[in-house]
Amino acid sequence: MPRYKLTIEYDGTPFSGWQRQSDRPSVQQALEEAIAAMSGETVTTQAAGRTDAGVHALGQVVHFDLGRDWNPFRIREALNYHLRPAPVAIIDAETVDDGFEARFSATARHYEYRILTRRAPPVIERDHVWHIPKKLDAEAMDHAASQILGLHDFTTFRSSECQANSPLRTLDKFSVRAEPDHIVVSASARSFLHHQVRSMVGSLRLVGEGKWSPADFRAALDARDRRRCGPMAPSSGLYLTRVDY
Amino acid sequence: MPRYKLTIEYDGTPFSGWQRQSDRPSVQQALEEAIAAMSGETVTTQAAGRTDAGVHALGQVVHFDLGRDWNPFRIREALNYHLRPAPVAIIDAETVDDGFEARFSATARHYEYRILTRRAPPVIERDHVWHIPKKLDAEAMDHAASQILGLHDFTTFRSSECQANSPLRTLDKFSVRAEPDHIVVSASARSFLHHQVRSMVGSLRLVGEGKWSPADFRAALDARDRRRCGPMAPSSGLYLTRVDY
Repeated sequence: MPRYKLTIEYDGTPFSGWQRQSDRPSVQQALEEAIAAMSGETVTTQAAGRTDAGVHALGQVVHFDLGRDWNPFRIREALNYHLRPAPVAIIDAETVDDGFEARFSATARHYEYRILTRRAPPVIERDHVWHIPKKLDAEAMDHAASQILGLHDFTTFRSSECQANSPLRTLDKFSVRAEPDHIVVSASARSFLHHQVRSMVGSLRLVGEGKWSPADFRAALDARDRRRCGPMAPSSGLYLTRVDY
Repeated sequence: MPRYKLTIEYDGTPFSGWQRQSDRPSVQQALEEAIAAMSGETVTTQAAGRTDAGVHALGQVVHFDLGRDWNPFRIREALNYHLRPAPVAIIDAETVDDGFEARFSATARHYEYRILTRRAPPVIERDHVWHIPKKLDAEAMDHAASQILGLHDFTTFRSSECQANSPLRTLDKFSVRAEPDHIVVSASARSFLHHQVRSMVGSLRLVGEGKWSPADFRAALDARDRRRCGPMAPSSGLYLTRVDY
């Protein structure tokens, strides 16, 4: 069976997340229905990152198998046709060999988290940022972020419902930059724990507000205690931007 | 009567445009209702640019008068409260002297037009770009744009329903830059004719596709003939970004 790799963008706002749910619309369901409409085949798709409700993707990667050969260009065009009006778009489609696994072959996952720091609420960016109506200290946040690069036990920054076997992860990039009226946090790792990025960003916010020092941020990590995590950042500001293989 | 100046952002998608209409929601109506809810006063607001249906604003400027003195900070907060859930936000509020007119005191208006040039349809940017599913030649477009800077008769690039007395306008900036998967057109002038930016961008698109040379673009202007205008660009890609005084 030929295997296909898709790179997809979606607006997470109307979805219960990537993963299929019995009672609420998911990105996976929208995509699998489009594949069925195109091919007549019922398939199960696998994604690199099982994004939560409201989390967006600019470069989610998915694979699935079909019974017959399709031209990848035609797959992209047909799926984009059948996906409408769901806010999901196929950016790219490729044929891959059957050893490729969107989830398990990934070597790096890249996320961005966008915060709007002006007083006025978001309008053009509604549902696409976290609105914190005051200036944050981007330099202190970036300094704090740099304190936790590398291999650590991320128990503090992981959901209590996280099902990963180990709390150990290696954070390859974690940095903060200021843009006009915005703070943008970038995070890259081979893989992340459940709610890890939102937990880290929620805690970094306390640094940006001056409530925590960068040393406090590092100490929260070292405590390996979920109760030391700051209030978690909402899903609306989070984007899965790219997955590397 | 004290006069107030507002700088406002809006998502033009659900509105019939800036101007109040009897039968459809407008930005002006949303704003005037919020002012009434705040102050108990019925006012008429005047805007720097009467944007069309679907056109967005990042920095529209509006003025209005109230019977009593208000702290501008409180005006901003109260209007943002009363505007919800309409996609309109007050970025800034100031007291101005009563000679200030949002429309007539403006010395420059700045617009941006955003085009998405990838194959896949917009999702995160749905209703906020013009989707042209192929690469455009940004350099040729920028060269063509530079051909029409300065004072000209813009009859070719003006709506047949434009009510301005004169078709003469001075274009101070008109340039095109490439961003990843996007083309962004910037236009600045003291004032614009009705549909001028969308008409110019619609014609520039023909240059980007190689159907017109930059010389053809200039010749269309010189013809002073509305029938020489390319198909007009849709409103979804247009943003009023700033107004100077």
